[in-house]
Amino acid sequence: MAASIKDVAKEAGVSIATVSRVLNDVDVVNDDTKKKVVDAIKKLGYRPNIVARSLKTQKTSTIGIIIPDISNQFYPEIVRGAEDVANIYDYNIILCNTDMDVEKEMEYLKVLREKMVDGVLYMSNSLGKNTIELINKLEIPTVLVETIDKDNSFPSVVIDNEQAAYDAVKYLIDKGNNKIAYIGSDEENFNAAALRYVGYKRALREKDINLNPHLVHFGGMKPNDGYEGILSILNEAEVDAVFCAGDEIAMGVINALREKGIDVPNDIEVVGFDNIYASEIFYPKLTTVAQPMYDMGSVGMRMLIKIINKQSIEEKHYVLPYKMIERNSTKK
Amino acid sequence: MAASIKDVAKEAGVSIATVSRVLNDVDVVNDDTKKKVVDAIKKLGYRPNIVARSLKTQKTSTIGIIIPDISNQFYPEIVRGAEDVANIYDYNIILCNTDMDVEKEMEYLKVLREKMVDGVLYMSNSLGKNTIELINKLEIPTVLVETIDKDNSFPSVVIDNEQAAYDAVKYLIDKGNNKIAYIGSDEENFNAAALRYVGYKRALREKDINLNPHLVHFGGMKPNDGYEGILSILNEAEVDAVFCAGDEIAMGVINALREKGIDVPNDIEVVGFDNIYASEIFYPKLTTVAQPMYDMGSVGMRMLIKIINKQSIEEKHYVLPYKMIERNSTKK
Repeated sequence: MAASIKDVAKEAGVSIATVSRVLNDVDVVNDDTKKKVVDAIKKLGYRPNIVARSLKTQKTSTIGIIIPDISNQFYPEIVRGAEDVANIYDYNIILCNTDMDVEKEMEYLKVLREKMVDGVLYMSNSLGKNTIELINKLEIPTVLVETIDKDNSFPSVVIDNEQAAYDAVKYLIDKGNNKIAYIGSDEENFNAAALRYVGYKRALREKDINLNPHLVHFGGMKPNDGYEGILSILNEAEVDAVFCAGDEIAMGVINALREKGIDVPNDIEVVGFDNIYASEIFYPKLTTVAQPMYDMGSVGMRMLIKIINKQSIEEKHYVLPYKMIERNSTKK
Repeated sequence: MAASIKDVAKEAGVSIATVSRVLNDVDVVNDDTKKKVVDAIKKLGYRPNIVARSLKTQKTSTIGIIIPDISNQFYPEIVRGAEDVANIYDYNIILCNTDMDVEKEMEYLKVLREKMVDGVLYMSNSLGKNTIELINKLEIPTVLVETIDKDNSFPSVVIDNEQAAYDAVKYLIDKGNNKIAYIGSDEENFNAAALRYVGYKRALREKDINLNPHLVHFGGMKPNDGYEGILSILNEAEVDAVFCAGDEIAMGVINALREKGIDVPNDIEVVGFDNIYASEIFYPKLTTVAQPMYDMGSVGMRMLIKIINKQSIEEKHYVLPYKMIERNSTKK
């Protein structure tokens, strides 16, 4: 039989109300009494009923994580980083997969509010007006990770996607390429991945290379999008390098080129984006722009926990460093 | 201002106690009254405070998922399957990463109990006596996924790992190979992956092939374990095929062979295990034994929810079908 709050009070020789005050960190208890209670709790192995306490304190030590899809290669490391930090501060995480479905995102927000989570770490490809209004109405502390909010009203953790893409394309140009294809998200989509197209265009412009629409393929972020994308581009134009807005796209591109007998990197150089786990195991190993996924999750969670506990945060918008990693899908 | 239970009572023309009875599904309310209350709830958009209700009903509609590591390629799909089913039945999941650390597993179990989760989906490489005792003591409904429990005391979802490995090795033998290496988990580890070694040995024995210890390499399940493993085996013995206890091992093996100028599949055939997402993108595409990861998560979660709601389950131990998938790391 587990020890009750009554047992603790008896053992410490104080009232139940005093034990409750200690548990809830109310400051009116003097240190001697507090010590007696803490000792009694330890001795009896007492564990307070967190749910009952939550009602009083309005805290559940639980944080919601809203992501598009945990089985997408990009998110597990972010979630892992977030959970590790949550664990250090004695928070647990409720994981919600939304498939970027706005209705599902909003439904999850409501459920998380009902379950009285202390805050939400939010990742989405499309943070719209209605969702922002809902978050504000529900009054849940929220930190965005790799998610764009036009008004910058929420604290956030991102990398500079535009600059990172610019760097990657400039890298390809500096190696002597000028027929550089882009495969990835459309800039009409107002999301982090779409900013990579903006960076692609800036790099071309600065080097006086005309944007050739036949070299651009908009679509999804999966291997098959890369596979189909490069085949359709090769029907229309000559290509000497491909900048892909994601590593999975790059893998699909390389597989398509291999089947056509085109050598990567000697005939066509390919650069990916993200540095997902598989990019170093793939053949050839991908040259890519590494996003600090684990850090994005852990920094976002740390920031959220500070906000929940009304501590000051150093910056409202963290822009984490990315890193260009040269491997074997580009020439040495 | 959100509607309160008082507003609902007023709107429906009943007492607060009656609204509460409807919310808690107590059966003494007649259907007419119930309808009035339900209509009032809908009209006002009332959402009950779930935490307060949880205390009364002793249910939180929250389920803990304990896994080794969400950033390991094997688990995200299991978690996704589990979460999709949880979502259908209005449960949320609390995700816990344990890194197969028994202390961390036990700590999480205690925290989940305190947070009054309704049940736990449990994945571990080493379910020991202490953990089993703790689960029993905490009285949390628990379903095991891809986890071995010597006494079969918990409901579980697995595949027949021994038979699946046997099939894979027999497949290699039937193709004319008889110097077949094994790289993977040691049978001393009492876990699902280790059963694959047992299946490997049985296939050799049935075909009268002597077990050559120089062809066996025990280690971890990562690409580097395959990479180092095959190099060390090749120093000692001739090899015509490799059976790997995991796809990541197989990828490491193939990368090592490629660097040595050994062609897969023409010189050496390689078979993996699991069919993780990357195995179809890898070059060459892996021949492997597909585990139904998504189904393992969803079937396990469905079973757990039935148990939580005291519904009968058809089977206590689900053994899901696996499938041998022939791709390009073995000869046609």
